[in-house]
Amino acid sequence: MRQQTIIAVDWGTTNRRAYRIENGAVIQTEQDTLGVTAVSPGGFPTEIERLRARHGGAPMLLAGMVGSNRGWMDAGYVPTAATLEALAGAVVRPIDGVMIAPGVRHVEARRGDVMRGEEVQLLGAVAAGLAPDDALLCQPGTHCKWAQMQGGAIASFVTAMTGEMFALLKGHALIGQEMTGPVTPGDAFVEGVHESGRGDLLASLFGVRPASLLGLRDREDAAAFVSGLLIGADCAAHAGKRDVHLLADPALGALYACAIAELGGSSVLVDSHAAFVAGANRLWEYLS
Amino acid sequence: MRQQTIIAVDWGTTNRRAYRIENGAVIQTEQDTLGVTAVSPGGFPTEIERLRARHGGAPMLLAGMVGSNRGWMDAGYVPTAATLEALAGAVVRPIDGVMIAPGVRHVEARRGDVMRGEEVQLLGAVAAGLAPDDALLCQPGTHCKWAQMQGGAIASFVTAMTGEMFALLKGHALIGQEMTGPVTPGDAFVEGVHESGRGDLLASLFGVRPASLLGLRDREDAAAFVSGLLIGADCAAHAGKRDVHLLADPALGALYACAIAELGGSSVLVDSHAAFVAGANRLWEYLS
Repeated sequence: MRQQTIIAVDWGTTNRRAYRIENGAVIQTEQDTLGVTAVSPGGFPTEIERLRARHGGAPMLLAGMVGSNRGWMDAGYVPTAATLEALAGAVVRPIDGVMIAPGVRHVEARRGDVMRGEEVQLLGAVAAGLAPDDALLCQPGTHCKWAQMQGGAIASFVTAMTGEMFALLKGHALIGQEMTGPVTPGDAFVEGVHESGRGDLLASLFGVRPASLLGLRDREDAAAFVSGLLIGADCAAHAGKRDVHLLADPALGALYACAIAELGGSSVLVDSHAAFVAGANRLWEYLS
Repeated sequence: MRQQTIIAVDWGTTNRRAYRIENGAVIQTEQDTLGVTAVSPGGFPTEIERLRARHGGAPMLLAGMVGSNRGWMDAGYVPTAATLEALAGAVVRPIDGVMIAPGVRHVEARRGDVMRGEEVQLLGAVAAGLAPDDALLCQPGTHCKWAQMQGGAIASFVTAMTGEMFALLKGHALIGQEMTGPVTPGDAFVEGVHESGRGDLLASLFGVRPASLLGLRDREDAAAFVSGLLIGADCAAHAGKRDVHLLADPALGALYACAIAELGGSSVLVDSHAAFVAGANRLWEYLS
């Protein structure tokens, strides 16, 4: 590896995380809520200068929604099977010393999917040996990504609106009134995971309210049950009984690990920040 | 049948429909948006007097959410298997000359469901010979009811939040921005019905946006595709390849009929107003 300093930034829709990396090791990080939607059109050069000033200068490698048409500059998508080398070959350079990595697209028959930012984590996890090079990787969240790696490349992937659906139901659905309790991987969550096996999500969700009304389930358990229903449906469709490497924070990771175990599979939690840094380092090697 | 005049009212959450029935025949109807949520607590006697004055007086038979704890008086639920005779035996009388029919509850293991108002239509459809006495009946809508009749009684039923989910997605989800086109039972709708067969609703829904982004589907087709996904999932879970009697308005009935046909079943459209009137008439026979 060439000895060098870079500033790598995972710049999403609502959050941003920057890492100052010297000779492959993170020596400073910061996280804020200055996602791309919080930056005015034309405001990116200024924000980049501020960030660079705080971190002592260096070439910058940006990934995520900053490279979308809602960000600084559209960096496009590379097709599957996608490698770090392919990403490196398609970076865009909005100004001197700043590179934005492209996203990845996957098209299969009439179905298509895209990612932007997750690819650096996924490829980094494998590059760093945090996951085998044919792993099934999962990034839970608002839009949960499931990626099948092959020979260290992203061979295919699919996104489920699992977290967004939970928020929609809690915020705007009739059953949202019931969803006031905590969400933990306990009995109500597990009951939801198994209920999801009925393959009747629209009815299982409606059933939350009559279950309270008829005294069949404590209202306090409704949110955990709904979370189990949604995460259970997500895991059953995409993991089945396979082993999964989870790139997740501990709380969400515990819910997915529980659902995967209930469905007969097993999971390993991978540090998603370490995976991103590994991916950024390896990408930089191809670029420098 | 005893010769008599009644005013039957299907009084729901947001709408109300009243029928003046003389000797079993409807001679006057009115519909308005004075659902139970539009009536102030304590305001029901006044609204009833107004309604009765407009229709020349007569005993009144009310069904629907007017009999819930959000309505005039909680009329409770009768259990499955539910008949019109059982409903008649459990009416409540908030004031002289006014009867409110109870709802129906169904509990099976830890899963429960309730209906209030739909039962008069369902039992009326069978009583009037509009559907066989062992029919699978479907009432599409915000909360779609599927009822299995046996010997003319409601043996079991399940509710899916199909219509509510469509409205949630259109109004509040990220894919809602795509859902601006018309919903008709055309190619995009049929594509959604077949996509629902993948049993991966959370991913199929997310896919709507990348499909537009990658040029795989016209944005104009997104709403119809989502409708097909949801109605397809609903019909696959509850009808399979069976024959269904649909109590629906023509537009929604056409969507369900299309989905049921695509899945290999067949359907008959039943006039839901005629079914309600038949149910109210038969209920009145038990009461008078």
